[in-house]
Amino acid sequence: MSDQNGLPPNYFHHQLPNGIDMIGQYMPSLSSTTFGFQLEAAVIHEPKEKQGLAHLFEYMIFQGTKKRDVRALNEAFESLGARKGASTGLETAQVWAQVVHTKFEATLELMHELLLTPTFPKDELEQVRSIILQEIRRRDDEPMSRIFDLVRAGFYHDTPFARQVLGSSDSVRALQQQDLREFWQARYQPNNVLFAIAGKFDWDKVVEKMQAFFGDWEGQAAPISVPRPQPVTTIELEHQDGKQEHLGMMFPFPAYNDPDYYAAMVIGEALGGNMASRLFVEVREKRGLVYSVSAGLAGNRQIGGMRVYAGTTPEQGHECLEVIVNELRKLEQGGLSADELERAKVQLKSEHIMRGEGSAARMGALTRSWWYERKLKTIQEVKEAIDAVTQEQVLRVLQRFSPLSPITVAAIGPLGRDELVGNTLSV
Amino acid sequence: MSDQNGLPPNYFHHQLPNGIDMIGQYMPSLSSTTFGFQLEAAVIHEPKEKQGLAHLFEYMIFQGTKKRDVRALNEAFESLGARKGASTGLETAQVWAQVVHTKFEATLELMHELLLTPTFPKDELEQVRSIILQEIRRRDDEPMSRIFDLVRAGFYHDTPFARQVLGSSDSVRALQQQDLREFWQARYQPNNVLFAIAGKFDWDKVVEKMQAFFGDWEGQAAPISVPRPQPVTTIELEHQDGKQEHLGMMFPFPAYNDPDYYAAMVIGEALGGNMASRLFVEVREKRGLVYSVSAGLAGNRQIGGMRVYAGTTPEQGHECLEVIVNELRKLEQGGLSADELERAKVQLKSEHIMRGEGSAARMGALTRSWWYERKLKTIQEVKEAIDAVTQEQVLRVLQRFSPLSPITVAAIGPLGRDELVGNTLSV
Repeated sequence: MSDQNGLPPNYFHHQLPNGIDMIGQYMPSLSSTTFGFQLEAAVIHEPKEKQGLAHLFEYMIFQGTKKRDVRALNEAFESLGARKGASTGLETAQVWAQVVHTKFEATLELMHELLLTPTFPKDELEQVRSIILQEIRRRDDEPMSRIFDLVRAGFYHDTPFARQVLGSSDSVRALQQQDLREFWQARYQPNNVLFAIAGKFDWDKVVEKMQAFFGDWEGQAAPISVPRPQPVTTIELEHQDGKQEHLGMMFPFPAYNDPDYYAAMVIGEALGGNMASRLFVEVREKRGLVYSVSAGLAGNRQIGGMRVYAGTTPEQGHECLEVIVNELRKLEQGGLSADELERAKVQLKSEHIMRGEGSAARMGALTRSWWYERKLKTIQEVKEAIDAVTQEQVLRVLQRFSPLSPITVAAIGPLGRDELVGNTLSV
Repeated sequence: MSDQNGLPPNYFHHQLPNGIDMIGQYMPSLSSTTFGFQLEAAVIHEPKEKQGLAHLFEYMIFQGTKKRDVRALNEAFESLGARKGASTGLETAQVWAQVVHTKFEATLELMHELLLTPTFPKDELEQVRSIILQEIRRRDDEPMSRIFDLVRAGFYHDTPFARQVLGSSDSVRALQQQDLREFWQARYQPNNVLFAIAGKFDWDKVVEKMQAFFGDWEGQAAPISVPRPQPVTTIELEHQDGKQEHLGMMFPFPAYNDPDYYAAMVIGEALGGNMASRLFVEVREKRGLVYSVSAGLAGNRQIGGMRVYAGTTPEQGHECLEVIVNELRKLEQGGLSADELERAKVQLKSEHIMRGEGSAARMGALTRSWWYERKLKTIQEVKEAIDAVTQEQVLRVLQRFSPLSPITVAAIGPLGRDELVGNTLSV
């Protein structure tokens, strides 16, 4: 039943007649199974005036089905000893469960009930709404979480990628049961589903049960075309009195499906991925300019990006920005030393191997790999791809993607533009 | 070389001549190894006027050795692809690393350097101090983190268990390099070390390398006797204006080394461990009185405890407290239904199995098991212990430990004692 063309041992792919894509990695030594349904039913798919809908949906899908109210639903999951959850990103949303492998079939049946017969009960909607409004209040109280929204808004200006996942208090207050139903109707369709499973399972049985539970599901989610973001250099400031100055930066960098992706990962690791990284050493260790500094990839399928964050004080804000910009310039001009390259590669490979021991992490990795590239990358392939990165490739990547142009700089704190930026950036 | 008396297959114990206790679980299917050193060098071992010292120590142990400064140390760990960390509790502290198994020996050597030749450099001390002072400021800004300190202070009143792990701004400002040296001298001694390893390794090699690196280490940590906490019923209020009311409660309950421990775990799970639990259903689902409610075990070796937390509004504070107290009373009188018991058992077993797949979680579980009981419990034994819990045992536990007497009730928010408690508790 499974199409094994060109797949490595223990990896599987199959497509059900109704369009559901299925992928899997068998991990014989585990007792657990993690499986999830990823859909393009996320932030960029919301109607423009319904911001926060995809995130609200993530909560509401668990609040009741035609057969069970929320309490019975929670009891059913608990009876299976299931961990369950959902997440909403800019481009995709996922609903998942992790169980001891003997409970797979019963949990899959419950997931079917959840995904195909949700009722979005009105009383639960009001409870969930008030929880989300509190989340929004907390977000708005915390400059450290808002800085990421602000830098993203600058980078993706005027495209749906600039939206806030949670929405605003006003947009969330306006959402209705009918909006959830319409979103479900429009996006929760079999051709929009990527099912992934990792851990202990029998693939033929998984295919059989997926067909049994989901085979009758018919319908089409229409493709939604989203304008491709075109970042330009911009400075986004949000004034807030106090003793903190939060800095965020983002510049275009290779996306997951770019041949230079692993070189980009290595650069991110060496720049700000760990405590021996350039930013950590230069900004924090040597100069004590921040309490926190980091860098890492943060793009999506349409456009990749590298993001830098630093938390500092207003007194040190300008110097901190200057040092970071200087490090980006040095990076662009000189690339990485042989030592740095080697350390970053060892660290990334090691992390990949250690994460790869769990079924939840592998389910996530498979999903990404298939969704971005229609491939199922093994841990060995990723190791080899990281190993293949050279100093020359690093320099080429930094020529393709200059860290300083275009760059979005965002800040939340008391400093004005001149005080913070001065003539550090040629904007 | 290893003493296998009575240990299950793949489990190991050995004691080095200098007193270091070594335990291990071999997990052949993994590529990673996690190992850690647990010491009784924690909050209750601090000199009374040096609060926050154990936590500061946790940071400072990574800041330099006789051979390497902090930067070289971080680079050395990165070159091994190691995850590393440390944690400080009330009774024990732990320093650990997780690596791909081929890097075990080199990482162990680095850990030896860290533990036996730390220099606590003065300039790094100032940096770390300022980071911890920021942590303290954040803690003090967040009622949700302070509520746990407040309930603990009430429960453990006047014993070292009532201390705050981070210390206070004043106590941390006063700590000096010499304090770190003295703490290290007093507590970092081989007879005080429990070494645990889980994942892929060769036990004979591990014993050999431990002897090679740590065998010459000589010295004795003096036992520190700490008064046994004697909780009494008490109400601790901290006034804070605003729209939040945070409630915490704690009452004595079986400790890890108590024969009723697994029954206590099951009770905690059914009371407030998940979304089908009594508190979640009664307080949040049915009445919408909170945005968050939970319960779980939170004791230590000297005395066990069950802790309840609820985050609500001042308007709903009294009703929320009343409903929780009522649930505790119902629990004491009626125990758990057969359904609830079964669900909680399935959930706990499932969690235990799923967590047991990772080397870091197993290293932690082994350490606890040995430190509390001088046993190495297998996943199967824990499963059986959970399975053996009956409704009758649950009732007996609730007779041994009445949830309402003695009980510590703590609250942070605008409500005064009468408004919050009224005559709900017979204090």
